[in-house]
Amino acid sequence: MIIILKQGSNKSEIAKLEENLRANGLKTNLIEGVEKSIIGLIGDTSKIDLDSLYAQDCIDSVQRIQETYKNPNRKMHPEDTVIEAGNVKIGGGSLQIIAGPCSVESEEQIMSTARAVKEAGATMLRGGAFKPRTSPYAFQGLRGEGLKLLLKARAETGLPIVTEIMSADDLPLFEDIDVIQVGARNMQNFELLKELGKTNKPILLKRGLANTIEELLMSAEYIMSGGNKNVILCERGIRTFETMTRNTLDISAVPLLKQKSHLPICVDPSHAAGVISLIEPLSLSSIIAGADALEIEVHCDPKKALSDGGQQLKPEVFAEIMKKIKSLCGYLGRDLG
Amino acid sequence: MIIILKQGSNKSEIAKLEENLRANGLKTNLIEGVEKSIIGLIGDTSKIDLDSLYAQDCIDSVQRIQETYKNPNRKMHPEDTVIEAGNVKIGGGSLQIIAGPCSVESEEQIMSTARAVKEAGATMLRGGAFKPRTSPYAFQGLRGEGLKLLLKARAETGLPIVTEIMSADDLPLFEDIDVIQVGARNMQNFELLKELGKTNKPILLKRGLANTIEELLMSAEYIMSGGNKNVILCERGIRTFETMTRNTLDISAVPLLKQKSHLPICVDPSHAAGVISLIEPLSLSSIIAGADALEIEVHCDPKKALSDGGQQLKPEVFAEIMKKIKSLCGYLGRDLG
Amino acid sequence: MIIILKQGSNKSEIAKLEENLRANGLKTNLIEGVEKSIIGLIGDTSKIDLDSLYAQDCIDSVQRIQETYKNPNRKMHPEDTVIEAGNVKIGGGSLQIIAGPCSVESEEQIMSTARAVKEAGATMLRGGAFKPRTSPYAFQGLRGEGLKLLLKARAETGLPIVTEIMSADDLPLFEDIDVIQVGARNMQNFELLKELGKTNKPILLKRGLANTIEELLMSAEYIMSGGNKNVILCERGIRTFETMTRNTLDISAVPLLKQKSHLPICVDPSHAAGVISLIEPLSLSSIIAGADALEIEVHCDPKKALSDGGQQLKPEVFAEIMKKIKSLCGYLGRDLG
Amino acid sequence: MIIILKQGSNKSEIAKLEENLRANGLKTNLIEGVEKSIIGLIGDTSKIDLDSLYAQDCIDSVQRIQETYKNPNRKMHPEDTVIEAGNVKIGGGSLQIIAGPCSVESEEQIMSTARAVKEAGATMLRGGAFKPRTSPYAFQGLRGEGLKLLLKARAETGLPIVTEIMSADDLPLFEDIDVIQVGARNMQNFELLKELGKTNKPILLKRGLANTIEELLMSAEYIMSGGNKNVILCERGIRTFETMTRNTLDISAVPLLKQKSHLPICVDPSHAAGVISLIEPLSLSSIIAGADALEIEVHCDPKKALSDGGQQLKPEVFAEIMKKIKSLCGYLGRDLG
Repeated sequence: MIIILKQGSNKSEIAKLEENLRANGLKTNLIEGVEKSIIGLIGDTSKIDLDSLYAQDCIDSVQRIQETYKNPNRKMHPEDTVIEAGNVKIGGGSLQIIAGPCSVESEEQIMSTARAVKEAGATMLRGGAFKPRTSPYAFQGLRGEGLKLLLKARAETGLPIVTEIMSADDLPLFEDIDVIQVGARNMQNFELLKELGKTNKPILLKRGLANTIEELLMSAEYIMSGGNKNVILCERGIRTFETMTRNTLDISAVPLLKQKSHLPICVDPSHAAGVISLIEPLSLSSIIAGADALEIEVHCDPKKALSDGGQQLKPEVFAEIMKKIKSLCGYLGRDLG
Repeated sequence: MIIILKQGSNKSEIAKLEENLRANGLKTNLIEGVEKSIIGLIGDTSKIDLDSLYAQDCIDSVQRIQETYKNPNRKMHPEDTVIEAGNVKIGGGSLQIIAGPCSVESEEQIMSTARAVKEAGATMLRGGAFKPRTSPYAFQGLRGEGLKLLLKARAETGLPIVTEIMSADDLPLFEDIDVIQVGARNMQNFELLKELGKTNKPILLKRGLANTIEELLMSAEYIMSGGNKNVILCERGIRTFETMTRNTLDISAVPLLKQKSHLPICVDPSHAAGVISLIEPLSLSSIIAGADALEIEVHCDPKKALSDGGQQLKPEVFAEIMKKIKSLCGYLGRDLG
Repeated sequence: MIIILKQGSNKSEIAKLEENLRANGLKTNLIEGVEKSIIGLIGDTSKIDLDSLYAQDCIDSVQRIQETYKNPNRKMHPEDTVIEAGNVKIGGGSLQIIAGPCSVESEEQIMSTARAVKEAGATMLRGGAFKPRTSPYAFQGLRGEGLKLLLKARAETGLPIVTEIMSADDLPLFEDIDVIQVGARNMQNFELLKELGKTNKPILLKRGLANTIEELLMSAEYIMSGGNKNVILCERGIRTFETMTRNTLDISAVPLLKQKSHLPICVDPSHAAGVISLIEPLSLSSIIAGADALEIEVHCDPKKALSDGGQQLKPEVFAEIMKKIKSLCGYLGRDLG
Repeated sequence: MIIILKQGSNKSEIAKLEENLRANGLKTNLIEGVEKSIIGLIGDTSKIDLDSLYAQDCIDSVQRIQETYKNPNRKMHPEDTVIEAGNVKIGGGSLQIIAGPCSVESEEQIMSTARAVKEAGATMLRGGAFKPRTSPYAFQGLRGEGLKLLLKARAETGLPIVTEIMSADDLPLFEDIDVIQVGARNMQNFELLKELGKTNKPILLKRGLANTIEELLMSAEYIMSGGNKNVILCERGIRTFETMTRNTLDISAVPLLKQKSHLPICVDPSHAAGVISLIEPLSLSSIIAGADALEIEVHCDPKKALSDGGQQLKPEVFAEIMKKIKSLCGYLGRDLG
């Protein structure tokens, strides 16, 4: 950690600061510059609170030179993490395609969609039972009932289930679910993350709309520091000024996360773009950039969807995209599923 | 609501869509353009789900022309809402200054800060007991114990308390708290909002880092549609590419929210800038732009703060700012407190 | 075009507005809603100035439903445009790799880099002679001398030249250059665009850091409306709050631009990321998303580079990436060069 | 300057780097950390190119601890700069109100607007003769003819003129203009900035839509390093995801720029918001935050405006705002004009 001192700081203040830091078990190195001076710190600075440092009168700014996330850090764990969910493995070279409707709406809808995505080659089933909607008047999901329908679809198709949780109070209902999703709006719902850290369920953690890659890794740290190492990171688009797409897919996040972390990476092209015609190119781009999984919205009859109709694929369109995905997997030598 | 049809849509599709809309009790007006045609809808379109409309093959895009938020809408309630919290009234022309530390750290710290801010002219006391921190290793707050210390500070100073909730499970602990704060990261934690809607507590709802003004109003709608009309909206800076400040204070949000909504507006210049030297100018700007309240971080000894040290004011600096605020209130003919 | 009228507009105002619009040769359709009314306009609205419409007291907002760009619009020109530059064709299915140093620094540097990129498979040579630098104290380029060195490199290697112009006054110097680049900071330097529109040179137009896709197309319109149809659009990253990359590559822009426009699309992964380890994955992602060309910074000795050292590839690293690119072209059935 | 070395860099590489830096006249201080090591540099690092440093294999990142802008830096020039333009002084405590139409459209229009804004208390006249328009089909301004009309308006009203330049080729036409404006889209048109640096005209330099405060200061440096010290900085809103306003006024930029620089600061609330009802609150906020000037669009008949109709004030609305501005100046003890 490097501390940059304010110009004109007096020597006794600086000496006091150094003493203070040494009392915390750190070695200090003062370098006096022409205008500004700096202190280089050696030792375990991970427990030093940047904010409280900033309050010292003589400090201009502080810069960490080591990452603050530990558990998700590839330096701590050079090998790719592989997470088992039902009969599939996420990470480690294979590709998982998580497909299904935005919301579970009825038995018929989820069953027929599940069959269709399985038929097309999807390896996991998604479907929202608890729905985070901007408006309280919009369809809020079938909740517990929706989870039961998902399990029914799994029973028939064998596809492991990915579905979103919105409150830790609902955790008991998720006992049989394969992967619990944390939505973008809850990425920094720290109380929820802590509770999920106490389980051993695979967690699909979505990046918030205005969160940095480092913050995503820190949220993973919340879950992992609680003991649950089964975290899948998900890029789903960030907010920018561009208006032709719902969000802007940060494709660079995929290789960056692979470099910085050993955790598997998922991309959600449906929410990132919000435009059906972009799902195929964004899917292929994400795979070649290194994604371990894709999450794609498919609905047996999008015209009748109760949510996100405009970005849910028809099964036949999804099937066409799956052909391209399978072909690309063949080219890349990656297994699907 | 206006529906813009895809170029080349066929007549029978359009006829079917119109029929469908009419079956929902709406009147349709088809205007056939040279390239594109549109349908204008008349009637109560607030329950129509945009997403499901988008899934119709012949629809290019849909545009609402009426606001979707009702309860916070000034059209529904032309008079300013005035919210009582302890012995103060928020909204309706007066100005409230909510001051106090980022976190409650100890009895001595909160008591001495509370005395200092009261002495300087603050009208409410803030202090975090439950702390949303990016890192699981950072100080997470004194939690229930912190709330008790805040009530003790209120008992001595008479200042009503504003403090943040992070999980609906903790609601029983907030029974005696005057104003419950929802942090920026929880602005779209809809399950929490729903629970707060069932109480009658004043709620200070902070705008999320990447949320639009309309989304802030929709989150207020979540609380209000549950029956709790006591919502205070808070602008606290949004994320942009600028790096000299922690966030970018969206000052335009203040007059816009006053125009669109009858709810009181608070500004948090401490989090918006994250820079001590900006707190005074941002405070004065916010007041003259129409803010009903300011929330400012003050710590009796910022150097020892366990969080946010760099943006917490020393009591003597806060006292200087309060002099300017009082003078400005005098000029504007507004009452402080 | 749809005009949304303010709530409570009086009938005579609206009638006057309609009359006015009809006088401009448009047909008007008034739809009176419960709260708000709208006017649907039929006819050629492309010459109507939105801004002046907004000044009418009874108008709340105006929405175009047709694109304002014509020349770059795929609707006007369904076939892909193919642009000839020297001995290569950009667009129409083949892939061009434009490689070379950020700046031309010396004869030795540009010659040895040109040889190296050609050897590795690049099909065009880039190199900056006029350099837009944030600081006036940074290396500003060899200017006219740099252009001469580029032509010398072309004479030896046969690679067509892509290089940036910063002022229309320099146009005579670019007479023998194959493709003239307009940098991101000049995307809306309209006086420059107009002058380029009078030439018949291929123009590589880079998207500005905060410009929308529509604005990029409007800047292309500036050039094309002057008579020069040879425009290549280039996505090179936009500014967001993310700090791990220099900019955020908007990968969705590639397929979106292919859908909306017939012009060839280039991607610049070097500037988009500013991180060497991301250039390979972003290159492959861009190709599979549909890019017609990539522009990649390569320097024979990056350690000695006078600009952008941190994102310029060594020739041997570039050669490795080219192997992957060639392989991907083989898989996709696309010709390189 | 601080150089952070890559983890695992070998000693000989580091020694070579240090030697290299010392050869550039700098003192180096190596601090070897547990994981990472750093080098602190002492001496004049302003001429070191960050980019070329990054290309060294052993360097992870580099951080400047001194500002790179010199001429605009308050450290170099602690007193406020006061710029004379015609009969007014910008900076140094007074407030200038620059008002007038978006575009000069006709003699009648500019004369009647000039009279109206003068009558209301404006101290300078703005009006665009060269217009940067997104569309080539939109009104491009009266150009040279427009400048003549502005001078005519000055002759009658005595108001100094502020008007935008788009190409250095037009400089001769601006000889009699009082303040030359550089628009947001040209903030990094470095060739134009260099030419303006050779004149001694006051330059109103607008911040680009996606430019940082530091980049604005670096663009001022371009002009000032050429010899022209008469630069006025202008905040006019930045691009964010918020859609209710055209741009987001970064009010924090005003006090930050006052702290960092001695140059006068102008705010343009018309372009920042693009919403008439926000111009008054944003004007008052900007003044109390420390702005030395405001630039406000006023048109004698906005309904007939050829550009920006929706954000140009009617003279009577402007006159009402001027009353509030005068009153606020009285309160703050600042002179208008």
